Amino acid sequence: MSTVKLLEYGEMSPEAQAVVDDIKSTRNVDDVNNFWKALANDPATLSRIWAGLKSVMGPGHLDPLVKEMIYVAVSAANGCDYCLHSHSASARAKGMSAEQQSELLAVVAMAHQTNALATSMAVPVDPEFQQ
Amino acid sequence: MSTVKLLEYGEMSPEAQAVVDDIKSTRNVDDVNNFWKALANDPATLSRIWAGLKSVMGPGHLDPLVKEMIYVAVSAANGCDYCLHSHSASARAKGMSAEQQSELLAVVAMAHQTNALATSMAVPVDPEFQQ
Amino acid sequence: MSTVKLLEYGEMSPEAQAVVDDIKSTRNVDDVNNFWKALANDPATLSRIWAGLKSVMGPGHLDPLVKEMIYVAVSAANGCDYCLHSHSASARAKGMSAEQQSELLAVVAMAHQTNALATSMAVPVDPEFQQ
Amino acid sequence: MSTVKLLEYGEMSPEAQAVVDDIKSTRNVDDVNNFWKALANDPATLSRIWAGLKSVMGPGHLDPLVKEMIYVAVSAANGCDYCLHSHSASARAKGMSAEQQSELLAVVAMAHQTNALATSMAVPVDPEFQQ
Amino acid sequence: MSTVKLLEYGEMSPEAQAVVDDIKSTRNVDDVNNFWKALANDPATLSRIWAGLKSVMGPGHLDPLVKEMIYVAVSAANGCDYCLHSHSASARAKGMSAEQQSELLAVVAMAHQTNALATSMAVPVDPEFQQ
Amino acid sequence: MSTVKLLEYGEMSPEAQAVVDDIKSTRNVDDVNNFWKALANDPATLSRIWAGLKSVMGPGHLDPLVKEMIYVAVSAANGCDYCLHSHSASARAKGMSAEQQSELLAVVAMAHQTNALATSMAVPVDPEFQQ
Repeated sequence: MSTVKLLEYGEMSPEAQAVVDDIKSTRNVDDVNNFWKALANDPATLSRIWAGLKSVMGPGHLDPLVKEMIYVAVSAANGCDYCLHSHSASARAKGMSAEQQSELLAVVAMAHQTNALATSMAVPVDPEFQQ
Repeated sequence: MSTVKLLEYGEMSPEAQAVVDDIKSTRNVDDVNNFWKALANDPATLSRIWAGLKSVMGPGHLDPLVKEMIYVAVSAANGCDYCLHSHSASARAKGMSAEQQSELLAVVAMAHQTNALATSMAVPVDPEFQQ
Repeated sequence: MSTVKLLEYGEMSPEAQAVVDDIKSTRNVDDVNNFWKALANDPATLSRIWAGLKSVMGPGHLDPLVKEMIYVAVSAANGCDYCLHSHSASARAKGMSAEQQSELLAVVAMAHQTNALATSMAVPVDPEFQQ
Repeated sequence: MSTVKLLEYGEMSPEAQAVVDDIKSTRNVDDVNNFWKALANDPATLSRIWAGLKSVMGPGHLDPLVKEMIYVAVSAANGCDYCLHSHSASARAKGMSAEQQSELLAVVAMAHQTNALATSMAVPVDPEFQQ
Repeated sequence: MSTVKLLEYGEMSPEAQAVVDDIKSTRNVDDVNNFWKALANDPATLSRIWAGLKSVMGPGHLDPLVKEMIYVAVSAANGCDYCLHSHSASARAKGMSAEQQSELLAVVAMAHQTNALATSMAVPVDPEFQQ
Repeated sequence: MSTVKLLEYGEMSPEAQAVVDDIKSTRNVDDVNNFWKALANDPATLSRIWAGLKSVMGPGHLDPLVKEMIYVAVSAANGCDYCLHSHSASARAKGMSAEQQSELLAVVAMAHQTNALATSMAVPVDPEFQQ
């Protein structure tokens, strides 16, 4: 159960509906996911987050699939179950193979292990890492 | 200051020296970073971690630069300062441009923001995310 | 499913029952929430936590509603689903409006985003922040 | 040492300078903090983050001091040293007393303790917390 | 629902089956837990993780029960629900009493509270802690 | 630099001095560590935390050294540098050998790795883990 109500389209304010209309037309889908139905309680945040995501996840210097895999990696580290599922699905839709997913998870897991070692040993940063 | 002593080559056990020799020849460097000098206190873990890293970060289904960027993303989420510096340096050595680094950080930051929203609203996972 | 048994009143030790009696009379409720039924397995911790909460969340220099919203913010950062639900409910009971909840979540989410940026860029603390 | 270069005003692109000009005039300061000098490497993110912060931390349904204290709470949970210092300074500038800071930290600490208990006992959410 | 398919024995590759056979004979069980059925999608990681766990959790300088309790403590801090349940069960199987579990959780919770205080007050490390 | 002032004995309130006196006599030391000098700004929290620590870390069903190692494990997971140093020092004072410290860190690191895997694969809890 969510801590805010999930709003269906008819229950949203006109400002929220306008954002949802843009999500639907940009993604060419009939309905939006629960994340957006929850965010619709706050049209200002809904609008800001959608604009941010369109900008950050849009065309740039990194491959769109790479961006989704980075998103999955962060979501795993933060233990965000919803985000793990939604961005794993997005990555698959953008062509992530089963082998690539396996390798992504292996890197994420290894990073957690060496992060824990470096932190618990309080290793000082080598001067040559300075950029 | 570290919570374990950083060992120079001459202070390491023969088992640790053998691993360090392999790191130096694999990476074609004259000395290893502080992380390995700290891990050298525990030859069994040193050996296991190095073998794991060689396997996970080696050739596979993801580009080596992509793997380094995933490592940076996890290290940021875990707040591991040492790992952020070492893997940012590795990513630059593997060709990460300033524009790609900027985009990486923008994705990481956006992911933290939407992770926090999905978690705090306790949004239920949509059935269509099921694979 | 919990990792400890939830104890009903009749299954608790007299020491645990005494704490639960105080919770019920302080909060003017007929029964306590699951958190307390789980903690009742350890009367010493039950007693210490209840005394701490009464002291920390009681009258002081911050508004009780503000304290509940701080609690929600920390629970979101820690990904504690139970705590998010219980303290969101407490905040609503203390008068948090839907608009205030939206603003709370927007601040929490923005903080996660800029936390991630400051950490991943390893920004040095400005001297003027020193108090 | 940071993982990106801190840019002084003269080293920034015109797009970054425009954002920094707005920060300086909005806050009525002669120079911006290191966070902005680091973000200036990426004018698009600099612009997006500043616009988001102005909107989220601006006038609304919560007191500006309360928002800063929520920011401190999240920064503590995420272990963001820079953010703890900058937002503690902002909170003091907005009138946070020493007593209020003490109470803020006490709530943050207590929340971490009960978060850990609820998570480690895997307490099921009570039905009455449903909103 | 998982983000990867749980594989039953007949669906696994021969490499994965060989690892699972070793888990079953080492632990003297008829079937492996869901964690291994999920990992079986990636035989290389399955093999590496199982070898690492056998080595790290095997005989050494710490009591096996102590190692399980340390595992529970980390899993609580990371909010890993699966790991909390599996390692709490392992700890009970290795003799953890209800009183020991209560004390473990009390230490974990107290550590979270003082961690939050030390971090939010940014306390400088005392010179005498240097080893 | 800390976010609160570190108070020397002569700057503390009588209530804070009384707690510090008890810490000094209980631990048989001439001065207290920085953590207590920072907490002394808030005598109520100082008193509550010291009482809690004495109770939780005192004689019980777990060995005092085991409790310190659990504390180190949680501090590593939370990235609390101060706590890692102080509790590593306490563990050494209570007899932790170099071999035991190595094994502690190896378990902590392995737990982070499998936590990350179980979380990112969203593995469902096996029914037999139910207690």
